[in-house]
Amino acid sequence: MNLHSLINKKIIFRLLGYLLAIEGFFLLLSYFVALFYGESDSTSFLYAFLITSGTGGLTVFFTRKANKEFGKREGYIIVSTVWIVFSLFGSLPFLLSGAIPSFTDAFFETMSGFTTTGASILNNIEDLPHGILFWRSLTQWMGGMGIIVLSLAILPFLGVGGVQLFSAEVPGLTPDKLHPRVKETAQRLWIIYVGFTIIETLLLWAGEMNLFDAVCHAFTTMATGGYSTKQASVAFYTLPYTHYVITIFMFIAGVNFTLSYFALKFDFKKVFRNEEFKVYSTITIVFTAIIALLLINVGGNVEQSFRDAIFQVVSILTTTGYVTADYLLWPPLLMALIFMLMFIGGSSGSTGGGVKVIRVLLVIKNCYFELKRLIHPRAVIPMRLNKKTVPQPLVNNVLAFIVFYLLIFMIGSIIMAGMGLDMESAMGAVAATLGNIGPGLGSVGPVENFANIPGAGKWLLAFLMLLGRLELFTVLIVLSPVFWKK
Amino acid sequence: MNLHSLINKKIIFRLLGYLLAIEGFFLLLSYFVALFYGESDSTSFLYAFLITSGTGGLTVFFTRKANKEFGKREGYIIVSTVWIVFSLFGSLPFLLSGAIPSFTDAFFETMSGFTTTGASILNNIEDLPHGILFWRSLTQWMGGMGIIVLSLAILPFLGVGGVQLFSAEVPGLTPDKLHPRVKETAQRLWIIYVGFTIIETLLLWAGEMNLFDAVCHAFTTMATGGYSTKQASVAFYTLPYTHYVITIFMFIAGVNFTLSYFALKFDFKKVFRNEEFKVYSTITIVFTAIIALLLINVGGNVEQSFRDAIFQVVSILTTTGYVTADYLLWPPLLMALIFMLMFIGGSSGSTGGGVKVIRVLLVIKNCYFELKRLIHPRAVIPMRLNKKTVPQPLVNNVLAFIVFYLLIFMIGSIIMAGMGLDMESAMGAVAATLGNIGPGLGSVGPVENFANIPGAGKWLLAFLMLLGRLELFTVLIVLSPVFWKK
Repeated sequence: MNLHSLINKKIIFRLLGYLLAIEGFFLLLSYFVALFYGESDSTSFLYAFLITSGTGGLTVFFTRKANKEFGKREGYIIVSTVWIVFSLFGSLPFLLSGAIPSFTDAFFETMSGFTTTGASILNNIEDLPHGILFWRSLTQWMGGMGIIVLSLAILPFLGVGGVQLFSAEVPGLTPDKLHPRVKETAQRLWIIYVGFTIIETLLLWAGEMNLFDAVCHAFTTMATGGYSTKQASVAFYTLPYTHYVITIFMFIAGVNFTLSYFALKFDFKKVFRNEEFKVYSTITIVFTAIIALLLINVGGNVEQSFRDAIFQVVSILTTTGYVTADYLLWPPLLMALIFMLMFIGGSSGSTGGGVKVIRVLLVIKNCYFELKRLIHPRAVIPMRLNKKTVPQPLVNNVLAFIVFYLLIFMIGSIIMAGMGLDMESAMGAVAATLGNIGPGLGSVGPVENFANIPGAGKWLLAFLMLLGRLELFTVLIVLSPVFWKK
Repeated sequence: MNLHSLINKKIIFRLLGYLLAIEGFFLLLSYFVALFYGESDSTSFLYAFLITSGTGGLTVFFTRKANKEFGKREGYIIVSTVWIVFSLFGSLPFLLSGAIPSFTDAFFETMSGFTTTGASILNNIEDLPHGILFWRSLTQWMGGMGIIVLSLAILPFLGVGGVQLFSAEVPGLTPDKLHPRVKETAQRLWIIYVGFTIIETLLLWAGEMNLFDAVCHAFTTMATGGYSTKQASVAFYTLPYTHYVITIFMFIAGVNFTLSYFALKFDFKKVFRNEEFKVYSTITIVFTAIIALLLINVGGNVEQSFRDAIFQVVSILTTTGYVTADYLLWPPLLMALIFMLMFIGGSSGSTGGGVKVIRVLLVIKNCYFELKRLIHPRAVIPMRLNKKTVPQPLVNNVLAFIVFYLLIFMIGSIIMAGMGLDMESAMGAVAATLGNIGPGLGSVGPVENFANIPGAGKWLLAFLMLLGRLELFTVLIVLSPVFWKK
């Protein structure tokens, strides 16, 4: 029996088929939006819907006799391919409508959407029809939905990520058996996700935004995606109210959704005792304070300095990537702080990307414990997190993750520099895509975009978005030769 | 019984006293050099010798009744303080002669010497008298001697660093008992160190250098220090012969001295089977090839491109820091490669600094093994190095080391940026001092120096040199509150 018969290919195709049908549904939704605004590109959504749902439907039909056996191998393959398949079909509206004529650009923009990155190649956002803008925001919102299920249900089942620590806290979720629980967990967390999206929409609508912009921004806030319907991003809006509302919801989106679930059940003890949440809040407060004070020090208005500081800190830390201030114009120290934030990222089980607060917390704790161990070499000193002992293999996994992350960052930066980008832009582009943030430094900074990156560079960055979004290991495992041996 | 009686302070002072007497001997040597050249500053060496040896002698005298008990705690404290004490007394000639009037600058220059870093604040190297130049080179040579004993005998005894893996291969050296073996090992390795220094001196003298410059450059090559007697560093010398001789000896100095010992006993199998050596050689070859080809591609002469490439790669990889070409003028990609090399560093048990090849090798291996473990979660997959299983605590130690290294790099860069350096210079200065390299990027690049760094920045960078040179943990342990508790 060779490996190919070990992998249940039919079930993989069948699941992808189902998922494509769902993507088709969202395309149909965008079609109605385009119809509502009576825009000429609406038919491109209809075609995209027909192609996507048709492909999905046919695949499901032809695999109806598939064996239902579904193991980790199949899980890895599906997770690694679904974002690619979605981005391929998801770029259809951009291509068919002519909004983005180049396939490379359309794929980049869509992958940036589904991975909730927010790096854009568009120079003319305000000129685009409503349907396209809606679809662009929707890709991020769908991506965020996918990430919640992925990080809180599927990855623990696959044994990937440091998320195991958290999964134990999700009621009714054990990493051993996926099938019966995944639906329940997903539903519960999606209700929260949808709920927050609705509340944010209403709050933004109550301010200076119209309903359309409010919906789109709520979509991309909750997904920590960062696509805006305005070229200037959130800086377009001048009311402090708008900035604060978005800040609050970005912050919420960067928190583990399980904690939001507890908070909504008024179980605040669980939230405030959570070590990752404490560190996440502390980072936000400390970085905001430093940046705000320094901005005031260089002559900024007090309220605006604070607002710019907290908005930009939360936007980068949660890997959303909205912009209210061009941080490249800030003094070098502040830029360095922003660059550092790019590597931390959101909390585990949130829609945020990056290394994740919990991993940063764990490796720093491990450093401290290593010193203790060196001083008392004979003592057994277990590391604890949330009052539970952290098993050594998990520590090792987290450390391997961070080393992979930095290696990929370095190699990626060098390749991008090889394509002619200056070092700062190269490092910024890689950090911003691998961390699913969006805007980077230098020529891909907050008021620039990725349009001028060479084609090969766009494909590499799109791959880095995928890699970062799927917690590295998921993709790396499928790419490693060991995976394909018995 | 409180902690202070637990630490045998007298033996610490006694040993420091002995070591100061040795430093005094080297100051006396520099006095003779200054006398030989009949330079007016010779008396400053005489005073420095009297102060240093006097302090050392008196300390030894007053601690003659010291209890001989000597444990790890005392070991940590001595190692952490000896570099500081040496730098304080070692800066006397600079201060007394007026060559470096500022205490901050003199301390920086001396710490940079003893830690074999090579970062300099001097703008007028060719104007300095021979005695001062000799002493400056000698601090690096002494530092190199110290590092060989430290990394191959003392740190394994203290349980610090990933060096345990190697210590097992040093004949007659077990990490358990330090005392009877340390002398033997030190003597054997020092003979090699001195031998290589003499051979390099002769080879350089046979070329375009006079004996004085040959000795000084041999001192700072074998120590991977990088102080030159010329403002333009090795670029001052135009014969390719000189560049190649120095390249070869830098390469040797970056190899574990135990392997040199085996090579000199014609036991080449042990050398070529050594995994760290293989990776070290591979990195040298690959980086040289890429850089040489790219330099030729932008119009460089073939021989000179190859020579500049191999010289600069070996100089940065071994953390020597000599300069034959201003790599800041190279295309951004090459600068990124050089920056990457700064973090790798020399081999364990060499005089090179940085993270060390073996640690880089181990973490990358660990990443690969982590993928394997995720694919086969039930299998026990031990990691091997040089055909021996690497124990998990060692892996953890290495990973903690690298995380500490990167954290210190990040925090250091941010503080330096806060002092007004641009990001590139801040990162370059920190990487170059923490890695004991010397020249960095930007305003502290290969044709610049550290003179214009603000005073507080010089103290911080001097501290980073110490931290890097003592493999982080040695210093961090002494600084951690846990160390001072029972």
